[in-house]
Formats: sequence, C-alpha cells, structure tokens
Amino acid sequence: MKNITPSIQKVLDKFLDEDIGRGDLSLINTEDKFVNAHWISKQNAIFCGGLFIEYIFLKLNASTKVKLKKTDGETLTAGEKILELTGPVASLLSGERTALNLSMHLSGIATATKKMVSYLEGTEIKLADTRKTTPGLRVFEKYAFRCGGGINHRMGLDDAAMLKENHIAWGQSITQSVEELRQNIPWTAKIIVEAETPQQAKEAVQAGADGVLLDEMNPEKISILVPQLREIASIKNKKVIIEASGINPNNIKKYLSTGIDLISSSAAITKSPWIDFSMRFNSPEQDLL
Amino acid sequence: MKNITPSIQKVLDKFLDEDIGRGDLSLINTEDKFVNAHWISKQNAIFCGGLFIEYIFLKLNASTKVKLKKTDGETLTAGEKILELTGPVASLLSGERTALNLSMHLSGIATATKKMVSYLEGTEIKLADTRKTTPGLRVFEKYAFRCGGGINHRMGLDDAAMLKENHIAWGQSITQSVEELRQNIPWTAKIIVEAETPQQAKEAVQAGADGVLLDEMNPEKISILVPQLREIASIKNKKVIIEASGINPNNIKKYLSTGIDLISSSAAITKSPWIDFSMRFNSPEQDLL
Amino acid sequence: MKNITPSIQKVLDKFLDEDIGRGDLSLINTEDKFVNAHWISKQNAIFCGGLFIEYIFLKLNASTKVKLKKTDGETLTAGEKILELTGPVASLLSGERTALNLSMHLSGIATATKKMVSYLEGTEIKLADTRKTTPGLRVFEKYAFRCGGGINHRMGLDDAAMLKENHIAWGQSITQSVEELRQNIPWTAKIIVEAETPQQAKEAVQAGADGVLLDEMNPEKISILVPQLREIASIKNKKVIIEASGINPNNIKKYLSTGIDLISSSAAITKSPWIDFSMRFNSPEQDLL
Amino acid sequence: MKNITPSIQKVLDKFLDEDIGRGDLSLINTEDKFVNAHWISKQNAIFCGGLFIEYIFLKLNASTKVKLKKTDGETLTAGEKILELTGPVASLLSGERTALNLSMHLSGIATATKKMVSYLEGTEIKLADTRKTTPGLRVFEKYAFRCGGGINHRMGLDDAAMLKENHIAWGQSITQSVEELRQNIPWTAKIIVEAETPQQAKEAVQAGADGVLLDEMNPEKISILVPQLREIASIKNKKVIIEASGINPNNIKKYLSTGIDLISSSAAITKSPWIDFSMRFNSPEQDLL
Amino acid sequence: MKNITPSIQKVLDKFLDEDIGRGDLSLINTEDKFVNAHWISKQNAIFCGGLFIEYIFLKLNASTKVKLKKTDGETLTAGEKILELTGPVASLLSGERTALNLSMHLSGIATATKKMVSYLEGTEIKLADTRKTTPGLRVFEKYAFRCGGGINHRMGLDDAAMLKENHIAWGQSITQSVEELRQNIPWTAKIIVEAETPQQAKEAVQAGADGVLLDEMNPEKISILVPQLREIASIKNKKVIIEASGINPNNIKKYLSTGIDLISSSAAITKSPWIDFSMRFNSPEQDLL
Amino acid sequence: MKNITPSIQKVLDKFLDEDIGRGDLSLINTEDKFVNAHWISKQNAIFCGGLFIEYIFLKLNASTKVKLKKTDGETLTAGEKILELTGPVASLLSGERTALNLSMHLSGIATATKKMVSYLEGTEIKLADTRKTTPGLRVFEKYAFRCGGGINHRMGLDDAAMLKENHIAWGQSITQSVEELRQNIPWTAKIIVEAETPQQAKEAVQAGADGVLLDEMNPEKISILVPQLREIASIKNKKVIIEASGINPNNIKKYLSTGIDLISSSAAITKSPWIDFSMRFNSPEQDLL
Repeated sequence: MKNITPSIQKVLDKFLDEDIGRGDLSLINTEDKFVNAHWISKQNAIFCGGLFIEYIFLKLNASTKVKLKKTDGETLTAGEKILELTGPVASLLSGERTALNLSMHLSGIATATKKMVSYLEGTEIKLADTRKTTPGLRVFEKYAFRCGGGINHRMGLDDAAMLKENHIAWGQSITQSVEELRQNIPWTAKIIVEAETPQQAKEAVQAGADGVLLDEMNPEKISILVPQLREIASIKNKKVIIEASGINPNNIKKYLSTGIDLISSSAAITKSPWIDFSMRFNSPEQDLL
Repeated sequence: MKNITPSIQKVLDKFLDEDIGRGDLSLINTEDKFVNAHWISKQNAIFCGGLFIEYIFLKLNASTKVKLKKTDGETLTAGEKILELTGPVASLLSGERTALNLSMHLSGIATATKKMVSYLEGTEIKLADTRKTTPGLRVFEKYAFRCGGGINHRMGLDDAAMLKENHIAWGQSITQSVEELRQNIPWTAKIIVEAETPQQAKEAVQAGADGVLLDEMNPEKISILVPQLREIASIKNKKVIIEASGINPNNIKKYLSTGIDLISSSAAITKSPWIDFSMRFNSPEQDLL
Repeated sequence: MKNITPSIQKVLDKFLDEDIGRGDLSLINTEDKFVNAHWISKQNAIFCGGLFIEYIFLKLNASTKVKLKKTDGETLTAGEKILELTGPVASLLSGERTALNLSMHLSGIATATKKMVSYLEGTEIKLADTRKTTPGLRVFEKYAFRCGGGINHRMGLDDAAMLKENHIAWGQSITQSVEELRQNIPWTAKIIVEAETPQQAKEAVQAGADGVLLDEMNPEKISILVPQLREIASIKNKKVIIEASGINPNNIKKYLSTGIDLISSSAAITKSPWIDFSMRFNSPEQDLL
Repeated sequence: MKNITPSIQKVLDKFLDEDIGRGDLSLINTEDKFVNAHWISKQNAIFCGGLFIEYIFLKLNASTKVKLKKTDGETLTAGEKILELTGPVASLLSGERTALNLSMHLSGIATATKKMVSYLEGTEIKLADTRKTTPGLRVFEKYAFRCGGGINHRMGLDDAAMLKENHIAWGQSITQSVEELRQNIPWTAKIIVEAETPQQAKEAVQAGADGVLLDEMNPEKISILVPQLREIASIKNKKVIIEASGINPNNIKKYLSTGIDLISSSAAITKSPWIDFSMRFNSPEQDLL
Repeated sequence: MKNITPSIQKVLDKFLDEDIGRGDLSLINTEDKFVNAHWISKQNAIFCGGLFIEYIFLKLNASTKVKLKKTDGETLTAGEKILELTGPVASLLSGERTALNLSMHLSGIATATKKMVSYLEGTEIKLADTRKTTPGLRVFEKYAFRCGGGINHRMGLDDAAMLKENHIAWGQSITQSVEELRQNIPWTAKIIVEAETPQQAKEAVQAGADGVLLDEMNPEKISILVPQLREIASIKNKKVIIEASGINPNNIKKYLSTGIDLISSSAAITKSPWIDFSMRFNSPEQDLL
Repeated sequence: MKNITPSIQKVLDKFLDEDIGRGDLSLINTEDKFVNAHWISKQNAIFCGGLFIEYIFLKLNASTKVKLKKTDGETLTAGEKILELTGPVASLLSGERTALNLSMHLSGIATATKKMVSYLEGTEIKLADTRKTTPGLRVFEKYAFRCGGGINHRMGLDDAAMLKENHIAWGQSITQSVEELRQNIPWTAKIIVEAETPQQAKEAVQAGADGVLLDEMNPEKISILVPQLREIASIKNKKVIIEASGINPNNIKKYLSTGIDLISSSAAITKSPWIDFSMRFNSPEQDLL
C-alpha cells in the first residue's frame, strides 16, 4: 500500500464522518482564519500514519498544507515534532481527532512491533502478524506492523489457504485437504497447515504444503521437528516455511535457535497501547520563527 | 444502541467483507455439513459483543443458530462457555475471525472499564470515555465502555459543543465563545469548556457552560476550585457538571474527595489488550451431551 | 455545519445522480462552450442553499466558477440577482435543476422560519424546529431553519433523549424513566419530557429533566404552570427549559407572555412552499457589461 | 414502482439511519415488550406511502407486523385509521418518525394532486408533474403524484430529451437541435421542445418533436396555436403532445377548451403542506377489542 | 453521457479497487519516478473508452497527464498510438490493467457495431442494441455501441415500456395492456410491443403502440406486414417505429428492402472479442523525440 | 467463493438496480399472480451462474422459489431445462434480464474454458486465466473460469507480486527487485516474474521467484529452457512454477511436451460469446405435468 487507493480514501472519509456526524458544533466565528499548528509526540515511539494525515485534512479543506517531519517507520523521541500544518482553524479542529486517533493507534502498533522484532536481531527469523486485527482496520494495522519491521501474514481468507484445527477436526485428512485445495485455489496462492502435533506437521509437508504453523509447541519439540520437516521438503525438492506461534518476550529466546523461519504473533496489534501525540496551535511567537 | 440499526448492519457486513475478500480459499468439500461449536473465554473478563455475533453468522447463512450464554456486561471466568453455535461448518469458519476479533476487542474495553470503575465505588463520581476511539469503531467501543459500567461522553463533534485549548487560543474569550455557541447550536446540546486554569473554569461557569473539564489539574487545586464553581453556578441557578482528566489508577485515590462529578479517561479504550476467546467445534462426544 | 463534510458531499453527489440518471440526453454539440449565467429570485425571500451550490456545479466540471451575491440567511428582493456562474454550458444545464431544487426548497423554509420568528421579536422566546423533516434532508432543512433565525431542536434520536406520550403510556413512571435514562445516556445529552398535563410537567422537573415540552396546552394553563416549574427547578438548583408546541401565527400572541423559553413548530419545514428562482444565461449584451 | 427495488430499500435504510444516528437514546427497559399501535389521520386526505411503511418497521425488527387499512391513492377521512402495527415497542418508537414523515409528506402531495386533477374532470387533459422535486425524493414524490391521479413527466435528464429556453438561447436552431438529438439519443426516448413563442412551437413540430411545451402562454394564444400545430403534425403523419405550463387553480378554467393534451405543474410537489398523521399505542382496552 | 457524472466516477473507483484490492504488491522503490508511456493498438479497430481513461489515472495520482491521440469513435490502425501518459510509474502500473480492460472491451463493442452498421449503408435503417449487456456495464457498453455508429434502444426497464411474449402470455390482450400502460407510465415514455405474429403487430399498432418489434420474422412476411402497419398508423395519424430482430450478417441483405426502421441486435455487445491494446513505457530514446 | 458473501450480495443488488432504474414501467395489473417458468438453453454449453440466480430473484420477492436442474460446471445440451421458477410474474419479469445476462455471460466463459482445457487432456499442464477481466466482474468471471476446469491466476494486484516488462524496464535488476519484494510483501504471497528472454527467466529463478511466465516464447526455446530452470531451482532446493503465454488452439499442440506447468490465457474471458438461454412461462398444460 504505497498509494492511497480509492477504497482507502472512502474509508478515511467515513472516519471523518464518524466524528463530525451532522456537523461540528464547536466551531465559532473566528475559525475561518488561517493558522499554523504542529504535532508533538509525548513518548518515544515508531511513527506510523503519516501516509493518511494529509488526505484527511485536505478532504476538509483543499487549501490546507501538511508538512511531515517524519516518515512512517521512523523513530520519534518524546517531545519531537511530527508534522506542521497550515490551514483554516475550523478544518484543523474538525479533522484533528480523526487524524490523531488513527496515527496514535498505528504508531502504537509500529512501536510494539519494533520492540518484538528487536528480539530477533542477529537471526534469520522474521516476525509475522495474524488475522487478529480490529475489524475495519486491517490494511491500516498490517501497514503499521510493516512499519515496525514485521512482515505480513495473509491479508484475509482469500489470499492464502490455511488449514486450521477446526478444518482438520471436521474435514478429511490433511493430505486429502491439501490436495483438494491445490485443485481449487489460484495457483499463486500458498497453502499453510496449522499443526498441533509433529505428526500433523510432517503429513502437511509430505502433502506439499507451502508452510506449516507449529501451534504453541515447545522449543525442544520444534528443534527436533524442524530438520525432519526440511528433510521431507528436500526430498520433494521444495522449500517449506516453518512458522511458530505462542511466543512472547518471556519465552522468545528459547526459540531463536530452533531453525524456524517465522514467528507469528498478534500481540503487537491486539495488545499495544496507543502512543500519545498532541496537536498544538503555534503561538504568534512560534509563527515568527 | 439496543437495536442493530441499518447502519450498524452495513458496518458489520463490511467487517465480514474485509476478512473474506474475494472468497474464503480454505473451504473444502466437507464444509457444507452442519456442526455444533462453542466459544470459550481463556481469561476472566467482562463480556461484550454478543449483540453483534448473531447478525454476523446469520448474514453468512440464515440457517445458523447462535445461543448466547452470557449477555453483554456479564462476568466471564476463564474457561467459561460464552455461546453455542450450530450451522454449516463453512459459514462458521468464514465468520469466526470477524466475530471473535470484534468481541475480543470490545470485551477488552469492557473489562478495563470495569476495573477503573471499581476505584470509584462508594463515591458519586462517574467514569466517562472520550473521543479517543479507534476510527470506524466509535459506537462499538463506546457501547463496550457502557457495558463495563462507564458513562459516555459526547459521541462526536455534533452532539455537544466543547471549547478546548485550541479553540480558546485562537478564538475569542471564553465568555464570548460560549455566548456565540448558545445562539447557534441546538438548544438540546450542552456546552462544555476545557479549562487549563481555575480562572478559565470560573469564567466558563460564569458564562453559563453546562460543564467544565479541569484538564490535568492536581487534586489540591481541584478541591479548592470545585466549591467555587458550585457557588458561581448556584448564583446563576444552574447546575454545572465538573469533570477532571489526567487521572489513572495510580493517582485516582487523591481525586475521590475533590467533589468532582466525572472522571474522563481514554485509557480503557486506547490502552486495553484484547481478551482471548476461542471457537471450538464440538467433538462427537460433546454433541451427545 | 459550516463545512461541507464528506458525508454531505456524498449526499450532494447522489442528488446529481438522481436527476442525471444514465446521462443527460438533452445535451447538444454546442454545449462545450463556456458561458455566463445568473440566478434571479422571483419572490421576496430569505436565501438559503448557497453553501451547496458551488460544490454541485464544480462536481460536474471543476473549471466552473460560482460567485454568490448573497450569503445564506440574507434577504432577497423579487428580481434580485442571487449568483453568477461561468462554465461549460453542458455542465450548467446538467446541474441547474438539482441546485435550484435544493436552494428553492431551503429558501422556502428559511423564509417561513423568518416570518414565524418575527412574531417573537421583543421577547426572549426562541423558535425551535422538530424532527418532522423530509427524509434524507434533515441536516439541510435544519440548516435552513437556522438561516431563518430559528434554533434547532435535537438533530435525531441520538443526541438528546425525549420521553413522549408513547414512551410514557407503556413505560414506567416519568420519574423512573428519567432516572433510568440518566444512568444510560451520555452525560452530555439532555433529557426532555413531553408533558400532556401540568402534573406530568411537574413530575418531570422534579425528576431532573433538562427540559419539558408542554404539548398543546393553552396559554392560560401555561402561564400558571411556568412559575411552578421554575420554582421546582430552583429548589433543585437547576435550570429547566420550558418549551411549548401547538402554536401558530393565529394564536401565537397569547403565548408571548407565558414565560416559556421556546416554541417548537414544524410548520416552517412541513408546510412552506418553495421560493421561485430561475437560472438564465446571459445574453451577449449582458456579458459585455 | 410496484416493487420495493434494492435501490429503494437502500434509500429507506438511509432514512432510518438519518433519524436514529448513533442509536436511539430514549429507549428504556420496558421497551422490549410487544405492543399494538395504530395510525390515525387528523385530516381528510389522499393516502400515500403505505408501500414503504412495512419495509421500514420490519428493517428494525423482522417480527413486527404491519396491517394497512388503506392502500396508496385511497381517500382518508379525518380520524380514520390508516394502519395497525404490532411489534416490540422499541422498534415502533425508533421507526415511527421516519415512517410518518415519509407518508405525511407523500400524502400531502397526493392530496394536492387530486385537488388539481379534479379541475380537469370531464376533459381529456391530463395533469403532469415536472423535475421540480425535493432532491433525493424524486421516485417517491412522483409516485405520490401518480397516487393523486396525475401522470408523470420525464423522471430525469436521461429518459426524454427536452430542449429548453437555455438550450435554445446558446445552441443552434430548434430544427438543427432536434435533428442532432434524434441521431444521438435512444430511439425510445421522446423529444420535447419548450416553446416561448408560437413560432418556436411550430418550428419544433415541423422538426419532428414528439411534444411541445407552451411555456406560460395565455389561453387565447394557445387556442389559436393548437390547431395549427395539429395540422403541421398531421402533414408529417405524426401525433404531437401539446403541453402547457403556468397554470394554477385560478386560471385553469380558461385552458380547459384550448385543445391541449397536458398541463404540467410543479405546485403539488413544491407547495403542498404535509398531511398530519399520528401513531398511537393502543390502550389495554383497545387491545381487548 | 458526455460528462463523467458522479455515479460514473464512483463506478470507475470501484473498478480500480477491484484490481488493486488491499494494495498493489508489485510496486518497488524506483516507482515514484515520473516516466512517459504510451498505448498502442495491436489491431485495426474503432476506439472507445478514452472518455474514462484520464479519470482512472488521475484518481490514482492527480499529477498524471493523459493525452489522447484518438477520440472515441475514431478508427485505429494496428500499431497506431492511442494515447500518451506521463506520471509516477507506480500510478501508471496500478491503473494500467483497469484502464486497458475497460477500453479494450469497449473498443471491441464499437468495432463490432461499426461492422454491422456498415451493412446498412445506403439505407435508412438503423442498428439498435438491446438490454443484453454485461451486468454493471450497461452505460459503458451502450456508449460503445453509439461510438460504433449504432443507436441505443431503451436503457433499462424504466425509460420505455415494452410488452414481450412473457407479458402477453399471462397478461391481458395487447389492446388492454397498451391502454393500461398509457394510463400509468410517464407520458414521455414510449410503448413498444414485441410481436410474434403479424396479427399481434397489427393489434399493437391499432392499440397505439409507438413501436413494434417483429421478433424473428422472415423478410417475406415483414415485407408484406410493414405497409399494413404503416397504413393502420396513418389512419390513427401516428408514426410507428418498426423494428426487427433475429438478423445477422448472413441474412441481413434480405431485410434491407423490407421497409423496417430499425434492426435490433445484441451481438455486438454479447459476442464481440476485445481489441488488443498494450501500454509501453517509452525508452529513453523515445523520450528524446 | 462457495458462499454469496455480503459484498457479492451488494454487487448483485446493483446489477438489479442498473436494469430496473426508477422502476419497471412494463408491469401491468395481472402481474401479481404467481406463475411457473423455466429456463432453457438454446446451445450446448457448460452452465455457470446458478450460484447467483436464486439470490437475484429472492431479492425482488422473498416468496419466489428457484429450483436449479443443473449445478455450475455441468454440461447443458441445447434444449435442456436449466431451472424452474415459481413466483409473482412481476418479480420474475423484473429480474429476468439481469439473471439471464449474468449467467449467459458466465456460461460463455465456462464453455470456452472447457474447450481450451480439453486440449490439455492427458498432460499435467493446467490452464490459468489472467487479470484481463471485464471491470466489475472479476470474481464472477474467474469463478466461471474455474467452472470450466481452469485454475485461477492471481485475483488482483494484491495477492501475488508479479514483475512485468514494465517493471523491469524502469526498475532495478530482476535480482534486486525480487529481493526487495520478498522483504516487503506478505510471506504468503508468491513472486512471479514475466520473462521476455531465457536469460531473464534464469535470473528470476536464481533470485528465488516462485514462478516465471515465459512471455510469448516459441516452443523450441521453451523446451530447452525448462530443464535449465528446473535445474537452477533444484540447486536452490525450490520448486518453480513455469508458465507460458501467447498460446491458442492453433499452436497449443507444440507446447504440450515442453515441460511447462501452466498455460495462461485470457481468451476464454475476453473473446467468448455468451451462451443463449431463454426464460419461458409455463403454459397451463405444462403446469399440469
């Protein structure tokens, strides 16, 4: 998502409508005048959301100017200036909360992701997100996860097939299911199998899965399993991506040498607090600088 | 929000579309069969989101049955069953993540709200939310806040007028602004002034504001100010709602005897982790019970 | 509503689509040329709708120029010029009817409101609208009511709570209902009770309602009741807004000294004829001026 | 419009959303109980809107029952019952205003149309509406006009071509324009020319227009012109529809013998007051009947 | 459709969203740079779609420039340049497929239409399309049909009434049906009857239909029938449009002297292959020219 | 796409709205009666579209019954019955064209796909579609392609990354680009490179692409290249999917033994004529059977 596509534009419009409702009651007469304002971060953080801020303010008034001091993914120090704004005070006030809410939330995710990614430094292991995202916000939250240094897992039910416990419990065998999927899904789509047991993982790789997710297995079990899976894949002349879940800052160290490719974790999206930013109007003195 | 209005229905549809995209790739042949499933909470929590779950699953298949074991606002103990589902396995799988994501997020908010509200027990002070809500989710998150025992602040820029630091900095005096607003906004809308100083607070009450928000003032200052504000209001034969912000579990005790009416806090919405729920298909044995 | 918010923009787009349908059939070859046009009022009126006209014509062709001679709320004399337009004749013709229909309807409301408001001159009583508005047009019609000098009542079911005859007939007592509402609605939302009898009005004020609507009571009854209600409120150290309905130009004089704060009336919105405007292309001679 | 098409359903949903907004605040605990209600007309009128009422209430709660006592176009006497409703009191209250507003407005139009149509009794002349309709309401208002006995003019810019003063002023001759249109528009679409002068009318018929609108011509002029136009058409072996505008109850008699086919008039839509209906909950006694 | 109306804009936005989905994954770092590109036709064709291309690319990036070398309806020779583009390479790549797909499809229709129209040269007979159009594409495909020299039949069920075999089988007689329709539909709407037999055709004209469609009748039968229909119409002082269907390039010659006005055929829309265009980035050398 | 998701439902609603517009004018009084109808195929074909037909007719009237005689992907013989319908004649007539247009178009695609797939019988090669799909119809057309026995290529720009000539011309080397993509796209997304030359194909596989598209290479060149690519992949312990384009029924035989995995071809979607179906009302005699 490097462009703000028409569908994103429409979502941002709805975000504004949600806050403004039938019209901002607090506007008063003096608010047509042009003023300068800026945003400050109150915390150390990884910034995210700049991509959307300009669109939000310009939608309310096309003559507004937004000048980003930070690009998405950059580090913010407490007290640092994030951006500068010039525009009619009424538009700045009506868009303020929507723009802040979005970027404070996304920066919270980027910041938490960066923290978790830092534990993986020096390894080849990547951090992936999950489909646990706030309804309506998926492309935004997954973008924030990328800004924090993570890599995205599938974006929805439609861009990769994933057999999970619930599929396996009621469906056919893993082997049959993988084969059936391969006949039906786009050839560009990967097949991943969530394995509860080493046996399931081996069956999945044998059946030709592109990836296996070792669900909440302990590091010892994984260390033994990974070379076995690589061996099966190798015989089939394939590469398999091995992913593990159930990992958090407390237990992550033990997984670093298990040979896995990926750690998938929803925490940066489902458990991270927002970063605190505030918008301030420049005092006349500041405007002279 | 006791009904699922047409606009909420449309939003829930979009939540489903976001996850399903161009179609759920993981569905396999056996997934037309009807199965029983249930949801379990993995944590102690206040439940929220039940209001929307039935709609979500029925939208995918009208023959699905959802039976809630808990209503919104009720307590969940780790391991407790939240609801039971019967329907085609394909529909249950396609709706699972959307329904879970929404209610796990909302239950996180309700749970955090309840915790914060508990500090206020034995007092007349209420806990109010703010406009810091995830874009696109406001009616849902404010509903969760109510389920946790909080009371909503204004829902948007259009249902109450609030003069904030940014308005005051560039506008007219508080007195002029309050008067101007009173001439222009619906008579049913209240006017609240965010005061940085006791002097501003007094001017606001004198000007006839319905409420004042004492922004990050210390409890000592507030204790002195509150009776002064009540006195000014009383002379005008009015009631003023006095609200304070900048309060958290660490400092809340000091505010309990200041005489304020409301504490407004965004933390339950912007800083609460999701509660962990999972959906499980009943094993054949469970189905026999 | 000082800005044209994204949601208003979308509604105006739909207004255009409604008239243009699958494309304006009447356009002919010469209609790409730029021309000048203007609008004339055929009647004395209060103008309303200028806020939306520029958006409508620019949506069809961004190079069109609209120059308003009157702002919303100003007086128009029959024959007076309202605005000037320059743009491709095709765009002017395709947008003409939509722009005229909207502003002729809104000016009708503003004009009728102004008339009714004039009866209140010299008093402190304000004229308020109701929720009787044409479906789909509420923000527009309530804006026109403001342009005519009225003040808005609540904008919808969601920004103030109002207990009406129908609620009271089937619900609990007024006292119970007001208390229950107070626990559940945003603290920023006012509670109004529609009272059919003096007894109901007193109970409502006693219960803490922010306003009472005296529904179609005669002026004598109201004159006695108002001081009683003020007294009850005063004891509770509160201010109550007293509103009366069922008032029209024929009986309004008798209400002017009853002590009420507000008259609410739907007539300016539900009974006012449109004001007649017409768009005319400048003749070559006019263009030389 | 005998069916409620998907697009009408969507518009009705938006009407509900407009009034309910973020949720009906006035609902109280007792409002889940099922009750009976009915609608009464306070005036003599032609009823219109019944087609939409059931959809509106069922959208809020599918278990609601609506039983119409009158079909659209039927006469209502003051005090007469329009319909009966059974459903959860909360749904009835939330949908009440939207359903009433729509049908009160439409019944106003149907009633005014019927009145105007009555002047034409005993003649072959029909009453047609215009494109002066409230933005967003065209299919509804034109339906109401039909219910009152009128006939619709074109529904939009796209289903018939109409050359008007503004086209003619800046375009080519009427003859050239009619020919050019004939080459470009669907063959199923008629061409109508609005004529300011008898000469324009004759040129239009000569050029093959399907209809001419004699714009605000006096009855004497029209009486002379009509046979001339019929003669020109007859030579071309065509039928031309002759329409006149600028006619109102005061001058209509003089037009009845002019030989015209149609009178087009916007007044029933742009100048008619709403008819007053009210919804009342049945008292327990009424429910026993 | 000479303007891109708001509703067309919204449809074009959705076309882009359909292809881009959650974001174009293939974009790489260098793709912010501005480049020049052009479109080439690989086949001889009638061009169509230029009207929409500029909008599509500008929606993705407002700084893009599109310079059409051909206007809709013009002839393209294989190898000929259609248009030139300058813009950020990322936007050109993200919009490429949508813009090409639309214009390749529409040019296919225009080309096939032109071919079929060429058989009618030297006659007064016109080629009309039908309602067999790809769902969602009607205004586009009917526009392409016009660009190919055809004339549109009705655009939908709402802008002309057409009695077809299925209506007649279950309804009343043709005469009754035509009369009933005349009382109910807008006076601007024509009535067409699809006749399976000469008898039905005669009844239709006698009843006052504006057009008759002779459905798959052979040329001999039509040659006899046409003068009979003209005679009936003439007696009624009316003109009737006579349309025939079931005609294709193989049998068309025999119909040219039957006296019909119109041939309606869906083939150009339902059976025409796309024309092959391709977008190429200019090499540095080309950019120097 | 085994379910009709909310977004598909919305698209089908729009298809109906497109045809019905402001209301079906052709409906007459007798059309409320319930009738039986059926669909017949006039040609041999592969059926497609049944999945959507029931939804379309039920949206217009929920009491309609649709009984499919064929499921999507099954063979139809000319004259064979496709489905039976019972419902109010008005609803059947209003939905007829939309339902037929969609399934006639999709059956055309399924039929053409099946034909092309038949050339591949006895080989391991699969037929894949492309992103050349009619705007707005992608999920439908790709579904039809699957029903004809083909396999889908990527669904949009967002579910697999594909480096094409245009990327390579202006971007970095293939190697750099593939690496950069791998760092940025979801790990579940495959990377495909469109190669114009054997050298590009080898570089792509060496760089780790998941697939290469050999663009319009002749079979001799491909036969030499395929084992080389397999060898490079094998050294990297990977599997590469080798796809060829520019293949049609005339030249396909020569490609069957080249060792490729996939043939991608847009022809079944961009060049296939619709299959002719018709809806007929049962005669009273038929209803007795």
